[in-house]
Amino acid sequence: MMIDLNSDMGESYGAYTIGADEEILRWVTSANVACGWHGGDPSVMRRTVERAKALGVAVGAHPSYPDLLGFGRRVMQITRQEARDYMLYQIGALRVFAEALGVRLQHVKPHGAIYNAAVKDRELSLGIAEGVADARGNLILVGLPGSEILRAGREVGLRVAREAFGDRAYNEDGTLVSRRLPGSLLTDPDAVAERVLGFTRGMVTAITGKEIRIEADTICLHGDTPGAGSIARRVRERLEAAGVKPRSMGEFIA
Amino acid sequence: MMIDLNSDMGESYGAYTIGADEEILRWVTSANVACGWHGGDPSVMRRTVERAKALGVAVGAHPSYPDLLGFGRRVMQITRQEARDYMLYQIGALRVFAEALGVRLQHVKPHGAIYNAAVKDRELSLGIAEGVADARGNLILVGLPGSEILRAGREVGLRVAREAFGDRAYNEDGTLVSRRLPGSLLTDPDAVAERVLGFTRGMVTAITGKEIRIEADTICLHGDTPGAGSIARRVRERLEAAGVKPRSMGEFIA
Amino acid sequence: MMIDLNSDMGESYGAYTIGADEEILRWVTSANVACGWHGGDPSVMRRTVERAKALGVAVGAHPSYPDLLGFGRRVMQITRQEARDYMLYQIGALRVFAEALGVRLQHVKPHGAIYNAAVKDRELSLGIAEGVADARGNLILVGLPGSEILRAGREVGLRVAREAFGDRAYNEDGTLVSRRLPGSLLTDPDAVAERVLGFTRGMVTAITGKEIRIEADTICLHGDTPGAGSIARRVRERLEAAGVKPRSMGEFIA
Amino acid sequence: MMIDLNSDMGESYGAYTIGADEEILRWVTSANVACGWHGGDPSVMRRTVERAKALGVAVGAHPSYPDLLGFGRRVMQITRQEARDYMLYQIGALRVFAEALGVRLQHVKPHGAIYNAAVKDRELSLGIAEGVADARGNLILVGLPGSEILRAGREVGLRVAREAFGDRAYNEDGTLVSRRLPGSLLTDPDAVAERVLGFTRGMVTAITGKEIRIEADTICLHGDTPGAGSIARRVRERLEAAGVKPRSMGEFIA
Repeated sequence: MMIDLNSDMGESYGAYTIGADEEILRWVTSANVACGWHGGDPSVMRRTVERAKALGVAVGAHPSYPDLLGFGRRVMQITRQEARDYMLYQIGALRVFAEALGVRLQHVKPHGAIYNAAVKDRELSLGIAEGVADARGNLILVGLPGSEILRAGREVGLRVAREAFGDRAYNEDGTLVSRRLPGSLLTDPDAVAERVLGFTRGMVTAITGKEIRIEADTICLHGDTPGAGSIARRVRERLEAAGVKPRSMGEFIA
Repeated sequence: MMIDLNSDMGESYGAYTIGADEEILRWVTSANVACGWHGGDPSVMRRTVERAKALGVAVGAHPSYPDLLGFGRRVMQITRQEARDYMLYQIGALRVFAEALGVRLQHVKPHGAIYNAAVKDRELSLGIAEGVADARGNLILVGLPGSEILRAGREVGLRVAREAFGDRAYNEDGTLVSRRLPGSLLTDPDAVAERVLGFTRGMVTAITGKEIRIEADTICLHGDTPGAGSIARRVRERLEAAGVKPRSMGEFIA
Repeated sequence: MMIDLNSDMGESYGAYTIGADEEILRWVTSANVACGWHGGDPSVMRRTVERAKALGVAVGAHPSYPDLLGFGRRVMQITRQEARDYMLYQIGALRVFAEALGVRLQHVKPHGAIYNAAVKDRELSLGIAEGVADARGNLILVGLPGSEILRAGREVGLRVAREAFGDRAYNEDGTLVSRRLPGSLLTDPDAVAERVLGFTRGMVTAITGKEIRIEADTICLHGDTPGAGSIARRVRERLEAAGVKPRSMGEFIA
Repeated sequence: MMIDLNSDMGESYGAYTIGADEEILRWVTSANVACGWHGGDPSVMRRTVERAKALGVAVGAHPSYPDLLGFGRRVMQITRQEARDYMLYQIGALRVFAEALGVRLQHVKPHGAIYNAAVKDRELSLGIAEGVADARGNLILVGLPGSEILRAGREVGLRVAREAFGDRAYNEDGTLVSRRLPGSLLTDPDAVAERVLGFTRGMVTAITGKEIRIEADTICLHGDTPGAGSIARRVRERLEAAGVKPRSMGEFIA
């Protein structure tokens, strides 16, 4: 069983610090590094790649809508061509730091609202996938299982990775329970760890109690929630105790 | 005699159009493409590289201070490390478009105030040169003859190109006459063309009337002045009439 | 019959110039001045208010989504509270220039995508109207007849003005024909002038040829289309020839 | 003896939180509220003014260079006119929130690098003072004793307030010891409190040990340093124990 643990990183900006990057980096295998559009700045990008490299964590781009004020969490109506160009710009901006530090860029995981909008928006998904394809380098595109973005990624010839969320409740159809509903977020480290272990067997218990199938290559561990470091650690330890050693997605995604 | 003609390009932004790119691209051999910080946006960057490629013009990055409001024309007190990271970010952002279109990035010419500030600021120049060196790819760094930036570029192992200005008056010491002084700007196409031809022989007539020596690898033709297209054409034609065929700097800078 | 002629103004930004402000200002009675978020900057705002004052044109705010890159033409999912705060910020930023120059701010006309989104979005409209109400000063809120934004404006106690478009084709139900359809835009100055004259009688000919009723207090004349100046002049002259003297909306909206 | 305690506030931005505003607001008498250019956003501005009002703290504007990435801490070469327009824009943007909440704007304290640059730069200082004067409303301009900005403020007819720093070491000539030197920053609450008490008597002990005279109307308490809340509390308590009740500067600056 191959599984990757990913987390969003490098979202600090200028004088502003956000996230528990250093703590989380110790437990994950892939870092999604912000590219300056919703968070991150050139100096933060350099330092984040340096730390990921030092800790043996694979590096990917975490591009966004151009919305620093909204932290990339608000849908913007952009065209397919804009999505393509925006992704390409941000990937290039991050990759040059990775390459300067001797790190090969592994993947691209769109951030926040553009990630969510792409789940069902085919035109947007095609734009994103085309931008990633333009960047070459055999990059892996990360998205929700069954989403348009993964479909678009496959169509343009990209490797894709299916993502699951260790700290989110699932509906019976495999979609995520809205954050606005009670019980949508898991905060108990053991509960999250059990859930992640379940993902490695392709199973998750929906919020209704029913066991459903879910296929995931990589599990997202959020870094901006209280106790994020402890949760990440527990997940990693629980997986390893069960004989599952997380590996960077680039090692096993074909 | 080897000479390159360069011009700043791709400085339009969103709904805003600036410059006479299409016209100028027909006559120059190197395009300095804005990277989104003082002008340019991802879609403009793509189109500008496409047009440069179509017309056989070499492509370089034209990075800037982060100052869209000031069009990169105002000095900002940034650190050496910030300069390094800012250059690297912008070079990467542009290069990925170049590579996606099958174009190799040739050079880096800092824009506006950071170009000028680097003439005498050694720390800033080192930061810029280090950023260009970080980007690898044997990029050429463009700057004023005798400037700190060219010195810094050589020190970090970069190829460098010395730039002269066809439409600017020179002082006897080889520096440019301040734009605020009368006679600082040449607008007559023939006068500019003669001046450029002089550069190919290493000579320019200073504003005092004295002939001085100036060594240049590349001549800047501005694209944002009235009649810019006509001037560029006249320069090109005058050079070719004199048997000097402009070539992209990457072809002859060692 | 009371009618106002309005136009969007002051959308230049830093080194970028857009629009034919000076020309249009001679013919309109109300200027919608950009506030720096989709266009405009503090110096442009000052100059635009100065010119409007000099020509006796009333001044209003033209606030936008925070999207300079997209010129405010892309819908963004913002909350009602964000809409309220964004409007208030921009109104305040412009009003202080107006007051410094001895001009009383007359109205608020949201720009581009937020104007359009507010037509049907009640929550957004309430946020906008609340922001305008927060600013006090008896400001008039401008919107499409029958839109949610005018309804929201009335609910929070604002004066409102109904806007019609001299250069746009109408559907039979009084909505605008999408810009993407052929015939959606009128470019002939005489046709536009006749249409505007029709508005003063509460009538417009729909694209189907049917006469429909339309009630308008103010007519928008675009400044960023080719020939905008000539169209504005023709409209003004045609109105005056018919004995209709345009007046700033603040003079007649109760 | 009249003294005001001020602190910079409302510098959070979107998803980014900075400072200990709530804690500090309990002890100061004037809040310098960021206006969105180096920090702050419209929603943060509203909430900050609301909290200041609830706690009876006077509100002023804290305008900056347009440099969110650098948190307004980097000097930018702007013209006198730009300084004037930039100040005016930000003052207006904040004042409309204050007025919407029934609060009268009391003062303007430039932020970070523009505050420091204005100490000796007469042209910049005149631009700033003119912008504040443009805004009317009998605003107080805050600056360093003996600075060009206070001179400019007086020249254009503004009320001015002289500021001292409770947590900074002073040279014998009354200037601040550079932050880069050891001992430049005081972190012990009692030491800061004693220093502030000294200011009320017009005295401070320079880093050399010599007692020097310093005249101050308002004391800055930083909110972004560790233990800022405890320091502010100690200062307030020490002052009150000595029979000095801090008052908002607007109550006593003529």
